[in-house]
This record gives sequence, structure tokens and C-alpha cells, in this order.
Amino acid sequence: MNTASAALKSRIRRPQLLKKVMSAEDTLKFFKDGQYMGWSGFTGVGYPKMIPIALADHVEKNSLQGKMKFNLFVGASSGAECEDRWAELDMIDRRYPHQVGKNIKKGINEGRIRYYTKDKPNNKLDIVVVEATAITEDGWIVPGASVGATPELLQMADKIIIEVNTRIPSFEGLHDINMGTLPPNRKPYLIMNTEDRIGTTAIPIDLDKVIAVVESNRPDKTGGNTPADDKSEAIASHLIEFFEEEVKYGRLPTNLLPLQSGIGNIANAVIGGLAKSRFQNVTVFTEVLQDTFLEYFDSEKLKFASATSIRFSPEGFDKFYDNWEKYKDRFLLRSQQVSNSPEVIRRLGCIAMNTPVEFDIYGQANSTLVCGSGMLNGLGGSGDFLRNAKLSVMHTPSTRPSKKDANGVSCVVPMCSHVDQTEHDLDIFVTEQGLADLRGLSPRERAQVIIDNCVHPEYKPQIQDYFDMATKKCLAAGRGHEPQMLDKVFKMHTNLMENGTMKLDSW
Amino acid sequence: MNTASAALKSRIRRPQLLKKVMSAEDTLKFFKDGQYMGWSGFTGVGYPKMIPIALADHVEKNSLQGKMKFNLFVGASSGAECEDRWAELDMIDRRYPHQVGKNIKKGINEGRIRYYTKDKPNNKLDIVVVEATAITEDGWIVPGASVGATPELLQMADKIIIEVNTRIPSFEGLHDINMGTLPPNRKPYLIMNTEDRIGTTAIPIDLDKVIAVVESNRPDKTGGNTPADDKSEAIASHLIEFFEEEVKYGRLPTNLLPLQSGIGNIANAVIGGLAKSRFQNVTVFTEVLQDTFLEYFDSEKLKFASATSIRFSPEGFDKFYDNWEKYKDRFLLRSQQVSNSPEVIRRLGCIAMNTPVEFDIYGQANSTLVCGSGMLNGLGGSGDFLRNAKLSVMHTPSTRPSKKDANGVSCVVPMCSHVDQTEHDLDIFVTEQGLADLRGLSPRERAQVIIDNCVHPEYKPQIQDYFDMATKKCLAAGRGHEPQMLDKVFKMHTNLMENGTMKLDSW
Repeated sequence: MNTASAALKSRIRRPQLLKKVMSAEDTLKFFKDGQYMGWSGFTGVGYPKMIPIALADHVEKNSLQGKMKFNLFVGASSGAECEDRWAELDMIDRRYPHQVGKNIKKGINEGRIRYYTKDKPNNKLDIVVVEATAITEDGWIVPGASVGATPELLQMADKIIIEVNTRIPSFEGLHDINMGTLPPNRKPYLIMNTEDRIGTTAIPIDLDKVIAVVESNRPDKTGGNTPADDKSEAIASHLIEFFEEEVKYGRLPTNLLPLQSGIGNIANAVIGGLAKSRFQNVTVFTEVLQDTFLEYFDSEKLKFASATSIRFSPEGFDKFYDNWEKYKDRFLLRSQQVSNSPEVIRRLGCIAMNTPVEFDIYGQANSTLVCGSGMLNGLGGSGDFLRNAKLSVMHTPSTRPSKKDANGVSCVVPMCSHVDQTEHDLDIFVTEQGLADLRGLSPRERAQVIIDNCVHPEYKPQIQDYFDMATKKCLAAGRGHEPQMLDKVFKMHTNLMENGTMKLDSW
Repeated sequence: MNTASAALKSRIRRPQLLKKVMSAEDTLKFFKDGQYMGWSGFTGVGYPKMIPIALADHVEKNSLQGKMKFNLFVGASSGAECEDRWAELDMIDRRYPHQVGKNIKKGINEGRIRYYTKDKPNNKLDIVVVEATAITEDGWIVPGASVGATPELLQMADKIIIEVNTRIPSFEGLHDINMGTLPPNRKPYLIMNTEDRIGTTAIPIDLDKVIAVVESNRPDKTGGNTPADDKSEAIASHLIEFFEEEVKYGRLPTNLLPLQSGIGNIANAVIGGLAKSRFQNVTVFTEVLQDTFLEYFDSEKLKFASATSIRFSPEGFDKFYDNWEKYKDRFLLRSQQVSNSPEVIRRLGCIAMNTPVEFDIYGQANSTLVCGSGMLNGLGGSGDFLRNAKLSVMHTPSTRPSKKDANGVSCVVPMCSHVDQTEHDLDIFVTEQGLADLRGLSPRERAQVIIDNCVHPEYKPQIQDYFDMATKKCLAAGRGHEPQMLDKVFKMHTNLMENGTMKLDSW
């Protein structure tokens, strides 16, 4: 057994757990091929580092690639140095339910990693490895920069290993934790405002299940922030103008409604734009906070933010830790089941804003599968936010480059090649070209507004042609509610795969 | 002014409303072309009859077809003698948000009726016509066999007309009404059990808005019950066997979880089967109750049922009224916003069961658009139930007849021609062939289970071929997470439209 460092002792207030301290290498004996394993972590923060890296080194050193595979549950993505390296070393059999990383994506789309977005019944996990920034007198876990699904994973665990991270500050007091309960015993989440607390500040665990405690000195390996560009600035500006109109006509309160915002440069541009806008006392109820939220707090226009993880860049985390006192009472981190709860999202009346792979002229959206088949990252919280929000917004550039053509991919298509969000859920679509407000419109009306306001000029005649032909044909056949020509509907996609662009010679 | 009948006086406990009594014909002066109108009613019960019929007669007599059109809001379908006749007389411009009827469907698909499933912002309604079975001392409305969206429609009303139905009994005491509130002022629905009451037994209204009270002597014109047949009995039997397994393995309580069940003969077979099963103290939390629920109550196995409407057949209603004392404390009718609330459905952990138009091999479902374009009825509550349920079940015959072929339409297809429910929401698919449990399966695993268990033998080789070809092609291309061939994916649908069957000569 290792002797615990002074730093480690200062973080562990339950003495009996100090007896379980060991090195990451000493834990290797607990792992074997085929185990079901859970990790803490969400959107690349708060994940365990020491043990996944020790296991990867072990597999590499002993040429165990493909012979030591695990079924891995993480609330959302973890760090590339852990999960993506595991994928590269063929250490993942099944993966649940959201991921980011080049090698893991490759493994999924080549059929080596079975990727799941749905629970199987009666999940039990052999080992859960969880990162803590402190352990309380009761032996409860204080997470780091994310809560995610960690409470439920710990509930399902047969054995628990705790990595106590002494490199980053203790996050104690920032969390609001709820444990999972199943029907018929579920109770309401009595959140009426983004700042309402309904849980505990640490995660209760069964101490008898803890088989090891390991000190961790590795930071969350987050990447840089994706900065706004011209297109994302244009999108943000359309959206903020729309919000101003909504407030003017009394359809939104002057401080808007709690914002949910996705990840990426458009989200950054929107939050950046809001920090410069005239909306005061704004609140946020979202999944992930990015760097721009620090600016938003600094602008004094953001009153409070609730999330399940903070995924700052390394510089963002430095700023955050250096100004701990300034930020710490202005946000909280909830369990994923609460941050993404249909109940709370609907009650609060969130404004949900996310970026799809593509959307179609009738207002369906594809968030996961490129050309209907290739997995990108997974669905994440966008489904529950967009379904239950008071205002559901999808924003994307109108085009993306293909290898051959700077505007080879139109993000607006006749029919989505896969549907994750339906026309019943989505209100507003925004591209750098403009904004389409679909509320109160029938399908054919929606199509025309989307073509007029959102489609890139290089695709406008082509998509208008499709819509006109489909309308004529389907109305004549007495099935014209939402006109489609099923023999041509994916021609833009197949042309992209065959010829490198969605621009067609003819329909 | 008409003199109120004794029957009418016995139903109206607010004296000042007796002064507003008039005949349906006397109300014609209040209506003009282009008005936004709301009707009470849901799934063909509780809708106003006297005034819609008087208006239709007026239009017919004076040849006003197409010259007196209304924008019509009803929670769900009303009666054919009202709404479908209006469609036939070209009296509907816009229709929100669910309908049933040959002529209205025709009008929608030929482009004459603009059909909406989404609210427009700031809805205001010029006139709301509501059926009551009593009016309280406070002047509050006691609805009949449905609540639906009537509370919200009355909140949006500029003027109100009340049809008091003296032909059917007063339903006073059976309702639990909540009015609509908007964020940021929404509060929780504190329902922890199907029988919990959180509202009032009547709908408060602004009495100054009431411009007329009309006596009604017309019944809800419901059709007969659609009886179970061999296929639906087979589906029910697969499903009940599955429930028994779930209870055996401790994944469902012995009284199951609150059931949501759609309309139609499969739903009837399932409820009929449950009435004969060994599950005791079952509860129901659903949108609509059909005749079989009376049998289910009679079996003493159904403890309590919550819904937003009771759509019995004429014989069912007779039985219900004749045994009022026996049934009246065993169910309640809620506002549609509560009966279909994501919050409550998820908390209770409902078992949701609905019939789609078609579903695909990866577990997406189409509930609304035939061949991607032709509107059937609308989405109804299936979206929120299936998304938020603990167990989401889709049941359908594996095939339906086309004009040319008794099995011309396969209800299982490579890709749905329209998606209303996504793979992220649906757990269990059942046809008369068998049951596919998709929980915990990745997309390619799901496809094989669906092909093996649900597809009709006449389509099995054809769909297996598609899946094998698509898998080979997409895995090789590194986008094999959910294999599709976009150039062939709708070939079964286009063949149906061109050649009257989904059976292909070749892919």
C-alpha cells in the first residue's frame, strides 16, 4: 500500500478510505477482459485519467490489443488520452451512449465498436472508476467539473475505484446531486428557477464497494475553444434580432427564458452576442458551459447558470480557478438526469439552441448520422431540450465544404437522411443566410420560408425546383400534405457520395 | 330570447346565464368568414353539435361553400356530422392539430385545408364554442366526455358560446381541470399516482365573454368499436407474454406500470387480453378510454384509469350511464396538457403502446404520413407518451393489404418514409409474427432482431437482402453504424405507388 500524500489526505475526510490508497498500477489486478465498466465524466471533463492510462499502457506493453476489451459506460465523452487511445488499442467492445474522438468514431463506423444510445434492462457494472475532488466525512464523492451520469453509474456499481484529483481545486459546494429512482417511486424535481437546489453537494456511495483510492495529478485534457467566425456571428445576429422582436411583442420576458446552448463556434457566437446585447438578468439551464459563459458572467448580464458540466479550455479553467470566489455562487452542476429532465426543461420554458448535421425543408433535423449511416458523436441532450423547450432553435451554416467544393454540402436538404428531431419539435431554423420562424405554419408553408430564408444561394434554385415538382405531383395524387418524391429525395446525398458535391446537374 | 327548458334550468346553476339562452339559429349572426374558432371536444366526444350543424345548414342553404371559412382549433377530432361535413362544404381554411374524417383528410391532402400541428405565437380565438353538461354556481363549465384542450381554448377566447347538453347525464365530479400557464410561471404537476387530483372539477371562465347559451339534445356521434381479430389477438398475446417475463425478472412491478394505450383494434385486443391476464391492481394513465376499458373495470383487475376523454361506442356509453355508480369513482378526466404531460408520463413510468403507419429496421416509426406525404390523422399524444414512457411499444400488423395484393404493404421497411418517433424513443416492436426487444441493442443488432421477429415471411428475404447489402457497403466505406443505401432505400415505397405492392423483383 502507498502512503497517502499530504495533498491527498487533505482531500479525504473519511479516514478508512485512506487505507485503500494505492497506485494506478496496483489496480490492474482488478480488471479483466469482458468487464462492464463505468467512468465518471461528461463532455471531456471529470473523467478518470490514472487508471485508464495505466490500463492502456498495460495493454500496449503486453500486446493485449483486442484481448482485453471492455463494455464502457460514460455519461458523455471523456478525454482523448483515455477513451480514444482505448479505441486505438481495440479495448472497447460496447460503448454507451455519447462519444467524441477520431479513433472511437472510426471503430464504430467500421463495426468494431458496438455503439449504443439505449440502456439495456438491469444494467449492472462490474467496476466504476470515478474522479473525485474531495471525499466527505460520510465518504461521499465530491465530483470535479462534471456530474453527468456518475450518480447512476455508482448506484449500478459492483466495485468502485476513486481517483482523487489533487491537481485541481476541490469543487465542493458547486454540485446539486440527485440519485436515480425508478417508477413507481419517482418524485418531482421541484425546480421552479434555474438556481433552485433540490439535491446534495456530494454523491452517497456504499463504502464497502470501494476497492481502491488512487491519487490523480492529471488535468482534464480539454482542447481550445472554437472561436466564432463570420458565419457564426451572422447566425448569432439573426437570432438576437429575433429575440428582440419576441420581447417587443410580449412573447418573451425581457430577460428572455432560461437558455440551453450546445457546443461549438455557433453556440460561442450566440453567447458572445448575448453578452453584448441589452438583455439583463438572463439565466441559463443547459448541459455544458463553455468559455464564453465566463465572459457572459463578466458582462454582468448573466444572472445564474445551471449545467451538468463545465467544459472550459485550459485557459478558461485557469481563469475560473483564479476567480473562484467571483464565479462560485453563480452556477451549479446538476445530475444529467435533472439538467436534461423533460419535466424541468418544459416547466422553465427553456430556449433550446443546437447545431444539427442537416435539416430539411419541412423542419426535421438530423443530429447524428452523416448521409444516413455514419455516426458523428451521438445525440446528447439535444433531443430532450428541443422537444420540451418553449422555443426550439436549430442553427447551422447553410453549407459546409466537401473535399471538392467549398459549398459542396448543403445543410438544408429535401429530406433528412436520418431524423433525430422531428417537425413537431422544432420552431426556428437559422443559417448565416437568415432565420425561418416555422411556428404556426403548415408543412408547405414551412418549406417556402426555409427555402427563402435559410438556403444558400448556390442551392436555392435546385431546392425550390424540387419543392415545386414534389408539390405539383403530390397534390395531384391527393397526398400533398407534405410533398416528397421518394425516388429523388436523397439525390443530393448520393451525388455527394459519388461526385463530391450536392450540386446536381438535374433532378 | 328562448325560454329555457326545465332540463336546461336543472343544469345551469348560474342564473345570469339563463338570460343568454337562445336557439342555435339565433347564434348565426355571431359568425363570419375568416374567424378563428375553437371547439371543445377530443377524439370524437364532447364537441359542440348544435351550432356547427346550424352553420353547416346555413352555408348549404345559402350556397356559401368556400365563402364562409373558418380557422378551426379542436384538441383532437370531433364528430363527422360536424367537422367532416364542414370540410365537405369547404368551411375550413386552417385546421389545428388532429383530425379524423374522410373529407377533411381529402381537403388536407389536396391542399384546400391548411393543416397545422404547431401553435402559432399569441393565439387568439374570436369565438370558442364549448359543450357543457352542467354550469356551476360560479358559472364554471362542467365538460362532458372529454376535457382535451378546452381549458386553454377558453383562456384564448374573445367570445364564448356554451352548448349545454341535456341529453346525456351531467359528468360533474369526473374531471380534474388545470388551466394553462406560461413560463416563467409554470408549476409542477404533483401527480405521483394515476388517481391523484391536482385541479378543479369545472373550468373557470370569464362570464362577460359568454354571448350565448344553447340547449343541445344531440349525442356524441361515435362509431362502433373496432373488434379484435386474429392478428391483433396474436399481437396482444406476444405483448402479454413479454410483460410476464418482465415481471418474472423483476423489471416490472407485479401490477405493471401505468398503461397508455392508443385507439383501434390492437389496443382493444391488448386491453381485452390484460382483462383476462393475471395482472392485478393495474392502473391506466392514457389519452383515451375505449369500450374494452369497461370490460377491464368489470374484471376487477383494473384499479384506476386517468384519461382526457372517454370515446365509447353508443352501446358502451349506454352501459356506462346505466352503471354510473359503479364506474364513476374509478377514473377521472384531465386536461390534455396534464394527461399528455412529459413530466407526469416520465415520473409515473408509463408503458406506452401505439400503432404506427410503419416502422423501420433500425427502430424509427412513422405515425402520420403515408408514403412520406399523405396525412393520415396527425400525431396525437403518441409522441410525448412514447418519448417519456418507461417502456415504449409500437404494435402493428406486419403487413396491410394494397388494392392488388393482400400483403401489398409491409409495415416494416428499410427506412420510414417519414419519422415521427425516433430510434432513441422506442423499445419494443410487435407484429403478429413476434416481438422485438431493442433495449440495449446497437443499430445493426436491432435490424436483425426486427427482421427475425417482426417481418412478414413474404418480405423477410427481401428486407434481409437489403440489410446485408447495406451493411457490406457501408462498413466498407467506414460509415457503417446504421447502414443504409440512400439510392434504394425507398424502393419498396415507390414500387407500391407505381405497381401496387412493396414486393420487388430485385433491389
